[in-house]
Amino acid sequence: MAALRTLNVDLGERSYPIHIGSGLLGQADLLAPFIGGQQVMVVSNETVVPLYMERLLPGLQGFQVQQVILPDGEKYKNLEVLDQIYSALLRHRFDRTCTLLALGGGVVGDMTGFAAASYQRGVDFIQVPTTLLSQVDSSVGGKTGVNHPLGKNMIGAFHQPQVVIADTDTLDTLPDRELSAGIAEVIKYGLINDLDFFTWLEQHIDGLMARDKGLLAEAIERSCADKAAIVAADEKEAGQRALLNLGHTFGHAIETGMGYGAWLHGEAVGAGMAMAARMSHELGWLSEADCDRIDAPLVKAGLPTRPPSGMTPQQFLELMSVDKKVQGGRLRLVLLKGIGGALISGDFPAQALRSTLDAFQQ
Amino acid sequence: MAALRTLNVDLGERSYPIHIGSGLLGQADLLAPFIGGQQVMVVSNETVVPLYMERLLPGLQGFQVQQVILPDGEKYKNLEVLDQIYSALLRHRFDRTCTLLALGGGVVGDMTGFAAASYQRGVDFIQVPTTLLSQVDSSVGGKTGVNHPLGKNMIGAFHQPQVVIADTDTLDTLPDRELSAGIAEVIKYGLINDLDFFTWLEQHIDGLMARDKGLLAEAIERSCADKAAIVAADEKEAGQRALLNLGHTFGHAIETGMGYGAWLHGEAVGAGMAMAARMSHELGWLSEADCDRIDAPLVKAGLPTRPPSGMTPQQFLELMSVDKKVQGGRLRLVLLKGIGGALISGDFPAQALRSTLDAFQQ
Repeated sequence: MAALRTLNVDLGERSYPIHIGSGLLGQADLLAPFIGGQQVMVVSNETVVPLYMERLLPGLQGFQVQQVILPDGEKYKNLEVLDQIYSALLRHRFDRTCTLLALGGGVVGDMTGFAAASYQRGVDFIQVPTTLLSQVDSSVGGKTGVNHPLGKNMIGAFHQPQVVIADTDTLDTLPDRELSAGIAEVIKYGLINDLDFFTWLEQHIDGLMARDKGLLAEAIERSCADKAAIVAADEKEAGQRALLNLGHTFGHAIETGMGYGAWLHGEAVGAGMAMAARMSHELGWLSEADCDRIDAPLVKAGLPTRPPSGMTPQQFLELMSVDKKVQGGRLRLVLLKGIGGALISGDFPAQALRSTLDAFQQ
Repeated sequence: MAALRTLNVDLGERSYPIHIGSGLLGQADLLAPFIGGQQVMVVSNETVVPLYMERLLPGLQGFQVQQVILPDGEKYKNLEVLDQIYSALLRHRFDRTCTLLALGGGVVGDMTGFAAASYQRGVDFIQVPTTLLSQVDSSVGGKTGVNHPLGKNMIGAFHQPQVVIADTDTLDTLPDRELSAGIAEVIKYGLINDLDFFTWLEQHIDGLMARDKGLLAEAIERSCADKAAIVAADEKEAGQRALLNLGHTFGHAIETGMGYGAWLHGEAVGAGMAMAARMSHELGWLSEADCDRIDAPLVKAGLPTRPPSGMTPQQFLELMSVDKKVQGGRLRLVLLKGIGGALISGDFPAQALRSTLDAFQQ
């Protein structure tokens, strides 16, 4: 068994550990200390259950365990499917001392977290992320929620898990496309504020894509550490936490414009980061060489570096104006002054955005 | 214009004032200091809008105001109707700096508060309660949420308002039955821990029912002060805050058993308090004379002092077992050791509950 790596996310009384390693599913000693009551509701989806539910359950022996199995996919991340979790909790008479456990990717984690935040005004939850994307991103930081037909992640809450368990064995069954989507978020951490990590990724991108377990564990740990540091400094996204949205404003527009699920979140973020880089270049903040350097690992990871050909600049402008990063009518974007030098800015000529979008249209 | 009474609810950085008095609706100086951005969404219902919307709006001059008008009634306090608020916010492109303003009774307040707690993971809100019940109860303490077909208030969040404005003029148009329902909660504060206030209520119950403005303002202020003190000591209901649920476990069973809306919340709480008193007597904690003393103002306020004749003890036991006050499988109730001496207890023989329910059956 590989060594267990443990990170602590430092949020005062809401602090929690992230355990990363191989063979962690089913280890009761990693779970039991974080379960306050007797009732545990495992929330998962129809794809993950046949792969990992049996491996998880020995870790919950002695508890009163129930399951709710959701349909698989971003398009089910809505209020209607969320209600299936509430109904299961109420049908089984789960009380305020219960714990929800999310076994799955980002959609399962986000929905389970929001159900936990809002069931009886808040109960405990545990994240067991089974995709690379959720291991490096959505299981860290306490953002939970569901989509609305008029905007992604528009309904939700900040709610921190008790513990996160990232078992790298679950990546064995991950489809190639989802591995790539996870790599997009890994690359993001390098771009934001960790040039060392970005350089490491340039060297190891092929090994990561070949699913080298040691390299993956290292990438997950460094990504979580980078994210945890940013979240610890700004839990409720009053300021610097918004750096984590690099590529996301463009990316959300792509996801909404194409319909949820057509592009994976990580794919949209990949294209979104390439677009943010090009716009930074347009503003004179990033060299042409750095743009190319950013594109290179994205391409090696099989990620798009441009928006879908069907989307027009006008569509982008409309979709981006409902994004959460709009404050007081002004669009704020995460842009780059060099690799590892991300910043949040609303202080750019509208023309810079427009010509970036036009350039990708050609 | 009557004197403005102001109470402060002391919750650290989440502290907020409650203003009580006549002619407060439409006073911009009470609202503007508590609105952070430019966008204000007034949430109300089809009954309240024709009565008070025009009186409110001058208080919001200079802001970008939109309205969403919900159907009136407890049966609409659900996820589906909540979605109308989210949709209105998104349609009008409201961002994270927006403020939601609840103009109406407890249902409007609870739903608006939960929409504010969960829209973009949390925005500001203001309570302008227009019923006696919401002025003394649901506008104080930050409990927000919606019902689920399987249980009342099962989905929600703790989210404190920026300010509460209780204009006693809005009570002029309150139906008699809703005035009574509000009085039930007023009596509750006396019973919990304020024998002085209960004695004052015994003397003034007729004047309150005759809608004497001065007496109503006094009753609202004392009720809010009592509730604010309990909430300040225990914001998230880890312990003593549960005292506020006196009469509510029985009451929720009545509301669920009869179908939401058949009995008003305050009516169910009135009967619930009489039932809690009888059970306390059954346990030897409360004299027969005190039971009668508790029933008297309830009767004068036109409130029920016994459960609906159609409900069986078995139905009560089943419905009470899904209540939020159940912990680790044990039902906890708020009971009375004397008037003004409420306590939370799970330490009673099951037979005491059963024989109380049986006694009311006859």
